[in-house]
Amino acid sequence: MRVVVNAAMSVDGKLSSRERTQIEISGPDDFDRVDQLRADSDAVMVGVGTVLADDPSLTIDSDERKQARRDRGDPENPARVVADSRVRTPPDATVLNDAAHTYLLVSQAAPTDFVEQMEEAGATVLATGEDRVNLTTALGKLEGEGVEQLMVEGGGELIFSLFQADLVDELSVFVGPKVIGGRDAPTLADGDGFTEAFPELELQSVERLDAGALLEWNVP
Amino acid sequence: MRVVVNAAMSVDGKLSSRERTQIEISGPDDFDRVDQLRADSDAVMVGVGTVLADDPSLTIDSDERKQARRDRGDPENPARVVADSRVRTPPDATVLNDAAHTYLLVSQAAPTDFVEQMEEAGATVLATGEDRVNLTTALGKLEGEGVEQLMVEGGGELIFSLFQADLVDELSVFVGPKVIGGRDAPTLADGDGFTEAFPELELQSVERLDAGALLEWNVP
Ligand SMILES: NC(=O)c1ccc[n+]([C@@H]2O[C@H](COP(=O)([O-])OP(=O)(O)OC[C@H]3O[C@@H](n4cnc5c(N)ncnc54)[C@H](OP(=O)(O)O)[C@@H]3O)[C@@H](O)[C@H]2O)c1
Ligand SMILES: NC(=O)c1ccc[n+]([C@@H]2O[C@H](COP(=O)([O-])OP(=O)(O)OC[C@H]3O[C@@H](n4cnc5c(N)ncnc54)[C@H](OP(=O)(O)O)[C@@H]3O)[C@@H](O)[C@H]2O)c1
Repeated sequence: MRVVVNAAMSVDGKLSSRERTQIEISGPDDFDRVDQLRADSDAVMVGVGTVLADDPSLTIDSDERKQARRDRGDPENPARVVADSRVRTPPDATVLNDAAHTYLLVSQAAPTDFVEQMEEAGATVLATGEDRVNLTTALGKLEGEGVEQLMVEGGGELIFSLFQADLVDELSVFVGPKVIGGRDAPTLADGDGFTEAFPELELQSVERLDAGALLEWNVP
Repeated sequence: MRVVVNAAMSVDGKLSSRERTQIEISGPDDFDRVDQLRADSDAVMVGVGTVLADDPSLTIDSDERKQARRDRGDPENPARVVADSRVRTPPDATVLNDAAHTYLLVSQAAPTDFVEQMEEAGATVLATGEDRVNLTTALGKLEGEGVEQLMVEGGGELIFSLFQADLVDELSVFVGPKVIGGRDAPTLADGDGFTEAFPELELQSVERLDAGALLEWNVP
């Protein structure tokens, strides 16, 4: 499986302000690039923090791209994947609507009635890990479901865990022109952080895009 | 006065790990660029957090650049400036050695005996602000001392305050190839952070440098 992480950060590495509301960081060209990346992926993943903060749909915007997927026999939208150890995803979350199929990655600690509620909402629940989703095992299960390219759209807690488990193949970062600041604002990679053996990426390309820059990194 | 902020951050916007030890983020070409920027500046500033974490010298590395400064009648090294409201700079800090003149920006709350100790070590102490350095007033005083170009080398607490006080003219960020991660690691701009009216910068240039990218932003 190929794991491609994509995010938009401020000049100073933030995904949002300390209030964790959605902030417009990128522009129309980056939006279009991200839409294409979604269309090229079998599934799009976020952490439950992003579901709670932004209530995203994770669907494709362009009708042409949806049509192209149908034409090649794929579902209109890629599947959606939420890492959500204890099922904090609200039953009325947009990711549970019928625009695409949804996988909920939970842990053994997920309450049975919440799991059933998600299954009734049409989601496929995959349990791994005791207290928290074991991403290595969970991504293995997704691969078993036919997911060959998994796009990850954040947030910083999930992205850090994916790097920690050495699961990331590619990282695209749009750096937008805002300064957000804040020692408590979410960054591109949060979690506990590394203190040694920092993952070393390879810069594949760097270019201007919208009012910022796009950096594309490979993870060797 | 022209205020030029320069820093090296990881892929994910960190200046260091949560342990706040110095981490090699940039490479020889960026090091050389920073050395030139120092040589072009009248003073180089950091916050006391950086003095305590890294004990930097803030001096020019290249003998040619030092000679060029002497040739034009300037001191060999730019002056050093530490923002340090209550004088936490240790008396044996490298920034107090005689390689360059040093200004200590303190607040009215700085203990008199500590201030005297710094003056005995040869530093010029400038007091502004009640509990914390008032950067607008302090930079005005530095301008009165002949500082026309002030280079700021971090850390993230100081950089945020400078943006908040609308004192920054230019920001150069080297983005290096490491992922550092960590919700408690220092970032390029910490402090309380903005929640609205985010400063909007203009991307002046973007280029590959060493194993990363250099982004140069103007603050309109
Ligand atoms: N600018 C952008 O591109 C962008 C993109 C996405 C999000 N965002 C912003 O990012 C913020 C949300 O990010 P976030 O970091 O708080 O949340 P997140 O990464 O979306 O979700 C984190 C949650 O995922 C769950 N999770 C399950 N298994 C995990 C594992 N193995 N490792 C890590 N997490 C796991 C955890 O909750 P449980 O322990 O309960 O499972 C964890 O709290 C919001 O402010 C949003 O606006 C911005
Ligand atoms: N990669 C890089 O380019 C780079 C560069 C520099 C530093 N670093 C790293 O950054 C970390 C240190 O950064 P930091 O953010 O903790 O410290 P910092 O910004 O260097 O210093 C912050 C301190 O400056 C003092 N200060 C005085 N007046 C201030 C004002 N008006 N606004 C803000 N601060 C004021 C404050 O202490 P008082 O209240 O006591 O005055 C504050 O705690 C270290 O880990 C270091 O290795 C990395």
